[in-house]
Amino acid sequence: MTEKMILELIEKRNFKEIKEILNDMNEVDIAQFLEELPEREMILVFRLMKKEEAAETFTHLDAKFQKLLIEAFTERELKDVLDELYLDDTADLLEEMPANVVERILLNTDSQKRSMLNTLLNYPKDSVGSIMTVEYVDFKKTMTVNEAIKKLKRVGIDSETIYTCYVIEGKKLIGTVSAKDLLISDDEKTMEEIMESHVISVTTTDDKEEAAKLIGKYGLLALPVVDRENCIVGIVTVDDAMEVMEDETTEDISRMMAVSPSDDTYFGTSVFQHAKNRIVWLLILMLSATFTGMIITHYEEAFSAVPILVSFIPMLMDTGGNCGSQSSTLIIRGLAVDEIGFKDFFRVLFKEFRISLIVSVVLAIVNAIRIMVMYQNIQLSVLIGLSLISTVIMAKMIGCMLPLLAKKCGLDPAIMAAPLITTLVDTGSILVYFSIATRLFQI
Amino acid sequence: MTEKMILELIEKRNFKEIKEILNDMNEVDIAQFLEELPEREMILVFRLMKKEEAAETFTHLDAKFQKLLIEAFTERELKDVLDELYLDDTADLLEEMPANVVERILLNTDSQKRSMLNTLLNYPKDSVGSIMTVEYVDFKKTMTVNEAIKKLKRVGIDSETIYTCYVIEGKKLIGTVSAKDLLISDDEKTMEEIMESHVISVTTTDDKEEAAKLIGKYGLLALPVVDRENCIVGIVTVDDAMEVMEDETTEDISRMMAVSPSDDTYFGTSVFQHAKNRIVWLLILMLSATFTGMIITHYEEAFSAVPILVSFIPMLMDTGGNCGSQSSTLIIRGLAVDEIGFKDFFRVLFKEFRISLIVSVVLAIVNAIRIMVMYQNIQLSVLIGLSLISTVIMAKMIGCMLPLLAKKCGLDPAIMAAPLITTLVDTGSILVYFSIATRLFQI
Repeated sequence: MTEKMILELIEKRNFKEIKEILNDMNEVDIAQFLEELPEREMILVFRLMKKEEAAETFTHLDAKFQKLLIEAFTERELKDVLDELYLDDTADLLEEMPANVVERILLNTDSQKRSMLNTLLNYPKDSVGSIMTVEYVDFKKTMTVNEAIKKLKRVGIDSETIYTCYVIEGKKLIGTVSAKDLLISDDEKTMEEIMESHVISVTTTDDKEEAAKLIGKYGLLALPVVDRENCIVGIVTVDDAMEVMEDETTEDISRMMAVSPSDDTYFGTSVFQHAKNRIVWLLILMLSATFTGMIITHYEEAFSAVPILVSFIPMLMDTGGNCGSQSSTLIIRGLAVDEIGFKDFFRVLFKEFRISLIVSVVLAIVNAIRIMVMYQNIQLSVLIGLSLISTVIMAKMIGCMLPLLAKKCGLDPAIMAAPLITTLVDTGSILVYFSIATRLFQI
Repeated sequence: MTEKMILELIEKRNFKEIKEILNDMNEVDIAQFLEELPEREMILVFRLMKKEEAAETFTHLDAKFQKLLIEAFTERELKDVLDELYLDDTADLLEEMPANVVERILLNTDSQKRSMLNTLLNYPKDSVGSIMTVEYVDFKKTMTVNEAIKKLKRVGIDSETIYTCYVIEGKKLIGTVSAKDLLISDDEKTMEEIMESHVISVTTTDDKEEAAKLIGKYGLLALPVVDRENCIVGIVTVDDAMEVMEDETTEDISRMMAVSPSDDTYFGTSVFQHAKNRIVWLLILMLSATFTGMIITHYEEAFSAVPILVSFIPMLMDTGGNCGSQSSTLIIRGLAVDEIGFKDFFRVLFKEFRISLIVSVVLAIVNAIRIMVMYQNIQLSVLIGLSLISTVIMAKMIGCMLPLLAKKCGLDPAIMAAPLITTLVDTGSILVYFSIATRLFQI
């Protein structure tokens, strides 16, 4: 199924065939495909879809295309799409649209929905509240399996998931019942008898990453969200958790490379915004690298007397930087997946120390041999060997400590990654190198 | 609930209380907790659990502790645990255990299971086959909703998920039916009438990352796995997909920082293994950094005449490295989440070129001003400004091209990250810097 084919069918006004093709496609793929069509054709094809499929496809479109469609919609069409959307998707939509579009959307929403939307929109950006959905199924604890299944049949179609249902007493969450439990239990048993009463839950103000991690850790399909009184207010589903995990990874990786994280995709970000996201850290790191330069200036006499000294600067700087980023990366990742915590500070330090001993000695020996072969200069071999050993050990110590300290101070450990570590280690390694050199060569 | 409390209860032989505490805990947490107990106590507490909970807890234990338990088990106990395990968990277990333990496990498995295990174990390490489970529910296309629900009630308890069921004709997969469809459809409808016939599936030999991505993209709870004849042979569930995603991220991040990826956790890897994982790339990068050193040696006359030149080397090297890794990181991530492909080569190149123009000019101006203030030397300002602009542009071009080329050649783009880019850019930036310097200062 290609873009060209559809455009030809539109030309021929063979809408029946287009409908059949669309019928055979998954909504995620239709959305991807629509985004590649010219605007007029995109709107035309969208209108050929059935109501439910159209709404589902709509949620998978980029904000830019959603806006185009809404502007083309009649009030009737807009209402049809909005009626089919889950509330959390509508809230996401409102966040992305300009004021005039928001107004049109709200005019086509009933007052009950508007007030729920308002609540959803007021949760902080990274909170569980901002990603939760309010369409879940709950049962009273006295309901029988039979009654519960009847309720499921009635309300299930409008719920984002029916596979985990929630047992309440008043509004308080007291247990969970899975659709599997309902199917394999006796009709007459009550919810209280078959429910799992050890409920894993989060609150609306918890970090959304926390919710995603819990879903992953316990292998859940949905996680209930409760307020301070333990009343259930929503759920987070596993597909949203997967999205959060992916976004958090992208954010962490960006931060680790000194790029300010952004919610947009690579191509979705403008050249100017890309430049802005990258330049702040570059400036900070550039200016701190000039300190290393000043230290070098301080040792002008040394390298004027023995010019070959200068040629080892890149090797020392790079090796130090690489060793430091290896350690910081592994620690940052360990922190992200909750394997490592600040309590492991000394355990990590000791482990990295032993690793750096092995690594540095191997590197020093390889280099000393290379220098002996190339320059037949024992003094130089010793200097580079000693400098490498101190640089590697220092780099790995800094590399493992800074992310842990950042975590302790409530900062994102990811900013303590390669670029910052490299700049810090540079200064240290140049200092050590020239101190040893001036002593060994008695300059 | 603390370790100390349980140890005290064991001391007092108050097993009833321990049982109650365990009853209140999630199996994932029990596993975490057991791993912190001394060996004898761990085995004792494990034996206090009910059969199903014990088996579930067992799957969440690290291989080391699983081995301890199996060695302590009687044949009866071993059989009980094995009976409760899903086949994919048993296959994982067999992969981790030493030969004598494997033998005991196989002796306690019936021949039908043994042959299925054999098939599972023969799939390549990163294939879908290696993570799939064979316990799924299938329906004949002529079955009615009523019959299907009856079958679900009968076999559901032994299936890893009942929420997506598969409709087959012979053994061929022709559609999927969700538990939700079953609950909300009329009792007399057949599977053929209510099934979704556009099935997204993978084959046993596909990459497991591919399966995880499809589950994320289409928001699935399970993905069917078919053989070459489109016969269903297993399913991949969303919780396994989340694990794959997390492992792949860890692997990518390790590779990006020049650490050979390993399946083990940070603390689970020995000091010696850590050193081994890190040293290969360090050696390669160290030796290539010596080329940069040789280039510097080539310009000995230049920096002997104008020693201040040396002090800008760290700043140029670091800025080049950082600019290059920013670009390569964003491209590697874009490739990982399928936003960017090799087809975008020139689009990416043009985008990065415009970004690098903005970034480099800003950095050059800031530096030129700083140098004018500090040294009142226009020549030096011009030299550093020009060198910065060429370094940044070159770094960003190399940084965005290499991951794309690696992808094209079937290599993992992640190896084209910070460390390699930095080393390459170093050589280039030093060359450019000294070429401009020798011309400007007429050395």
